[in-house]
Amino acid sequence: MLIVLTTDVTPQAQKAVEDRVRELGFTPHAIEGAGRTAIGITGNKGPVDPGHFRLMEGVADCIPVTAPYKLVSREVKHEDTVVDVAGVPIGGREIVVMAGPCAVESEQQILAAARGVRKSGASLLRGGAFKPRTSPYDFQGLRQKGLELLEKARGETGLKVVTEVKDTETLPLVAESADLLQIGARNMQNFSLLEAVGDLRKPVLLKRGMSSTIKELLMAAEYIVSRGNKQVILCERGIRTFETMTRNTLDLNAVPMLKAHSHLPVVVDPSHGIGIRSAVLPMARAAIAAGADGLIIEVHPDPDRALSDGMQSLDLPRFEVLMREIEKIASAVGRSLHRITA
Amino acid sequence: MLIVLTTDVTPQAQKAVEDRVRELGFTPHAIEGAGRTAIGITGNKGPVDPGHFRLMEGVADCIPVTAPYKLVSREVKHEDTVVDVAGVPIGGREIVVMAGPCAVESEQQILAAARGVRKSGASLLRGGAFKPRTSPYDFQGLRQKGLELLEKARGETGLKVVTEVKDTETLPLVAESADLLQIGARNMQNFSLLEAVGDLRKPVLLKRGMSSTIKELLMAAEYIVSRGNKQVILCERGIRTFETMTRNTLDLNAVPMLKAHSHLPVVVDPSHGIGIRSAVLPMARAAIAAGADGLIIEVHPDPDRALSDGMQSLDLPRFEVLMREIEKIASAVGRSLHRITA
Amino acid sequence: MLIVLTTDVTPQAQKAVEDRVRELGFTPHAIEGAGRTAIGITGNKGPVDPGHFRLMEGVADCIPVTAPYKLVSREVKHEDTVVDVAGVPIGGREIVVMAGPCAVESEQQILAAARGVRKSGASLLRGGAFKPRTSPYDFQGLRQKGLELLEKARGETGLKVVTEVKDTETLPLVAESADLLQIGARNMQNFSLLEAVGDLRKPVLLKRGMSSTIKELLMAAEYIVSRGNKQVILCERGIRTFETMTRNTLDLNAVPMLKAHSHLPVVVDPSHGIGIRSAVLPMARAAIAAGADGLIIEVHPDPDRALSDGMQSLDLPRFEVLMREIEKIASAVGRSLHRITA
Amino acid sequence: MLIVLTTDVTPQAQKAVEDRVRELGFTPHAIEGAGRTAIGITGNKGPVDPGHFRLMEGVADCIPVTAPYKLVSREVKHEDTVVDVAGVPIGGREIVVMAGPCAVESEQQILAAARGVRKSGASLLRGGAFKPRTSPYDFQGLRQKGLELLEKARGETGLKVVTEVKDTETLPLVAESADLLQIGARNMQNFSLLEAVGDLRKPVLLKRGMSSTIKELLMAAEYIVSRGNKQVILCERGIRTFETMTRNTLDLNAVPMLKAHSHLPVVVDPSHGIGIRSAVLPMARAAIAAGADGLIIEVHPDPDRALSDGMQSLDLPRFEVLMREIEKIASAVGRSLHRITA
Repeated sequence: MLIVLTTDVTPQAQKAVEDRVRELGFTPHAIEGAGRTAIGITGNKGPVDPGHFRLMEGVADCIPVTAPYKLVSREVKHEDTVVDVAGVPIGGREIVVMAGPCAVESEQQILAAARGVRKSGASLLRGGAFKPRTSPYDFQGLRQKGLELLEKARGETGLKVVTEVKDTETLPLVAESADLLQIGARNMQNFSLLEAVGDLRKPVLLKRGMSSTIKELLMAAEYIVSRGNKQVILCERGIRTFETMTRNTLDLNAVPMLKAHSHLPVVVDPSHGIGIRSAVLPMARAAIAAGADGLIIEVHPDPDRALSDGMQSLDLPRFEVLMREIEKIASAVGRSLHRITA
Repeated sequence: MLIVLTTDVTPQAQKAVEDRVRELGFTPHAIEGAGRTAIGITGNKGPVDPGHFRLMEGVADCIPVTAPYKLVSREVKHEDTVVDVAGVPIGGREIVVMAGPCAVESEQQILAAARGVRKSGASLLRGGAFKPRTSPYDFQGLRQKGLELLEKARGETGLKVVTEVKDTETLPLVAESADLLQIGARNMQNFSLLEAVGDLRKPVLLKRGMSSTIKELLMAAEYIVSRGNKQVILCERGIRTFETMTRNTLDLNAVPMLKAHSHLPVVVDPSHGIGIRSAVLPMARAAIAAGADGLIIEVHPDPDRALSDGMQSLDLPRFEVLMREIEKIASAVGRSLHRITA
Repeated sequence: MLIVLTTDVTPQAQKAVEDRVRELGFTPHAIEGAGRTAIGITGNKGPVDPGHFRLMEGVADCIPVTAPYKLVSREVKHEDTVVDVAGVPIGGREIVVMAGPCAVESEQQILAAARGVRKSGASLLRGGAFKPRTSPYDFQGLRQKGLELLEKARGETGLKVVTEVKDTETLPLVAESADLLQIGARNMQNFSLLEAVGDLRKPVLLKRGMSSTIKELLMAAEYIVSRGNKQVILCERGIRTFETMTRNTLDLNAVPMLKAHSHLPVVVDPSHGIGIRSAVLPMARAAIAAGADGLIIEVHPDPDRALSDGMQSLDLPRFEVLMREIEKIASAVGRSLHRITA
Repeated sequence: MLIVLTTDVTPQAQKAVEDRVRELGFTPHAIEGAGRTAIGITGNKGPVDPGHFRLMEGVADCIPVTAPYKLVSREVKHEDTVVDVAGVPIGGREIVVMAGPCAVESEQQILAAARGVRKSGASLLRGGAFKPRTSPYDFQGLRQKGLELLEKARGETGLKVVTEVKDTETLPLVAESADLLQIGARNMQNFSLLEAVGDLRKPVLLKRGMSSTIKELLMAAEYIVSRGNKQVILCERGIRTFETMTRNTLDLNAVPMLKAHSHLPVVVDPSHGIGIRSAVLPMARAAIAAGADGLIIEVHPDPDRALSDGMQSLDLPRFEVLMREIEKIASAVGRSLHRITA
């Protein structure tokens, strides 16, 4: 950080600023100009809170010079990170599609979904076993039984499994079962959960909070990576705005911004993002065109009977169409679809 | 509108509701159910304000059954509208690209821009002559001189001209000169201006207000169309959200939603939408992938010296790259780029 | 503005920056430090667009050092401005209440409203004659007839009149009739209209746009004041957020912020701000407690039959209660209610 | 929920809807009208997801008729709930003020804060021991040591203690120590934590998420109350909007809305809400004027040296002024300040 002093700063005030820097354990470096002086700070491991200085006498401005995130930053690591999800590489040249129902509802449902999305070219099966719901009265998922059904579907189809981890209590159970651990939007700043998955060595899909800035998403990823787990995939899934015609506002601007500022892979969830079945396809195309490394799509063998999020789920024929269209866009941007080998 | 009555409504209260409908000049139709009664309304030309009834005794709910916009609605006209801008069709199978500087600054600048974008395949030249600016101290445009320079560029290159009309006072001047009249985001609900362009028979590019809902954009278009001018093109240019890393949040969700609800063409302005030069290309690709009928792109022969919006303007080589990439996406969605014939 | 150069800037790059400053007509002042150099700019009348420099070689950052607004700033003028509205002082120790219906609907309605609000202690009568409406099919006001009815009510009650001016075409008509010209939220950045009222010498009530920042509101006021009309009153009336339970989000935070940054009076419109009749009273109290200089309240003699905004209008007995409650809060913050003398 | 059928619904389609209701375990009630039929649903404990029906053939609309929250609703319980926090009643006629530093930093700091706020009339001491922070590199609190210091301050001053509980792991520790458990804004939808505090019989202060609707806050409270813990206090602390001049947008509109829809007490945190020291006092006054039952205020004996949130903390003399001003507003709305008896 650079502390810009006022032009009329007194020597005492300048000294007080420098002393304060030292008190915090850092080293002040006075950069004296003709008209005014600035104080540079070194010795800090992370960003320094400008609040320490902003109200001190003689301080005109505090300019941060390092991003508050480091390990996830592209400044620190230039090359794209490719996350290996049980053999499926995410973040490389190939686009990876994850698909399946919002929630695991029954053996029949999840197997039908898995076979269908496998056939159309998905590489991962999504499906919630532990569901965080806004109302305490809504369906909360099949829990352990749901995990078992996902494993069964994986065994039969070869699809890898991504499923949400809702809290630290059930993390061991979910981590044992899933290939990719999803942190939901509402938990993006559940720092205890971030630390807990940071202590594992299992890939994590981190969804952006519905009113989190792009920078906050990167800070949340930094929590995980700073604990040693470097296998983090970022996920844009729609933000909250004033618009009411769509469920959320899928913020595709986040895709080029995340790719510019971070080396981590970026996937997009158009199903939650726009929340309207007929609009999932164009938004999925747009996500790939914007540079996303993958998609996560809600697919249900019988969407009108889904226990949750049926209005935004595709049926299997629509998903088949989506995959063909996505393939064309991938090709137009010089990429291709990943397909798992039986 | 359907007025749903409470189950315990008295005959007097129901009569009062029906009388109120008649007072407003409409006809009430009681739809009596076993458990409760609803009152349908006919005879209204536009939507009825539920505020007339919501607080009346015996009224449980008011359910709108017709969209508040009619003429611009796809329910009313199924086929896509193709707007003819001096021979350039917008809204058909072909993607149309409009490009040029934020503001006309000089003859040399606008001619260099026009020649460059023409060469890369743009069909329309954009450039502001009358500039609405947040600060009274900012550059307000070359005004009439700017229009003359745009005409000169059109004469030399064959590009059609789109430029902003800022107020009713200068509308005659701008309308005489431009091929396509742009209504800026800040004027989207300047109803007097909407009515004035509605009285012309000149194509209009209507930009979404920075905090306008999709429905409000359609209502603003309805203002124009209801005066007889059916040549309206809708433009998504970014909305205001909490995100600060991007200038605005380009809302590509608006593209499929507008196409679903209206027959009017939709173009996207990724330059203002995201406001960061390096991200204009991916967002332009995404816009076409989402189903947009065209793009409006800021291009400046020397962006670092632009008098406004330089940070989001492409130089000519970058624009050339963008056009080639857009062409691939257009092809992937079964469309092609429009090119003007010399 | 201060242009901070990178530590490794070349002499050529520094010279290019300085030349660019001169090209823009300003004077560069190099402030050389031990570690890095900054370039100060003088000679500019308003703020300089950082976009001119931010992408130049050798530029690390551009720090604005002057607020973009000047004439409305408290830095420039320390003492509160008191606007004289036909004898009613707004911005002094006394709280001023403006009240009346959303729209003038009939002679009987406006006279009943005027007599009622006068009796309860209002000083100004509000009432729309020219109504900007989201839908072209909604009631647009009685226009000239509405102005005549307002004048009649003024003649009878002594209340001063505030009414909205919708466009430059009808400005002369409205300006002749009204004591205080209201610029509505949708017109806050209608710069041509701002300039036109800036050329008058008539008090202006400038409403904050529904998604305008506090700074943009001050810039809009600067447009008016920079044309010579210093009689501007700022009005907070609710911003657009994700919340749907209230019509808008009345942003009372704007009150202390505007008072801190500007010398202009601030009034609050809780009726549009929250949009729910039963919540107008607590929000009106809160506005005064936050430091507002006045209120503008929708009052209708028969709100359930109002042609617009009935759901948020108070009837006369509720307004009488509000005035008594406001008086107590005014007293608690060391102020009192202004009352016009017959 | 009421399922409104289309006018041309076939008997088969209507039967399918009714069968679907039964499949979900509920009872359908056909309400046949002259023009159209609606299906009422009973037997559901909470709200029914309209997604089950909205896309079925013959369904025109789904109208929810019960609020999604029940136990916290004023419809279910008319009288205000008064929460007893170790003898301090919150939600009754008396206004309760909680004050103290953002984080417990040292024994000297917390004792100085406690003595000071006690003297000025606060009833609870606030202070974070476990701090959720956006960056993994920021100060995370003194943890257990922080709790011990809060207990010491309580022992000396008689103030009750409110402190944040960050996760289920540390909940037993915090619950043993605190008189009032604070759930922070980022954890408002951490449903596992909500359930865990719902299983305790200890008062809970539930802060509104920074982009949560008022309805979602009530749903989160419902999670706690539905587990048997009825001692919940709601807290408005600012929402995220486009405005950047203030840290958050303190949404005082939430106060009358929460009081209208729920019987639970409502307190306001103006310090986080606006985030600017000089504006805390006017917003605190406004909160009481809007009907809040209490305040939570950041006070630090030496705010410029605070390890977090110093810019929004009051020093002790400013807090003393605030208490005197609040007392006047409380009196103006017919209430008084609670004071603990030694």
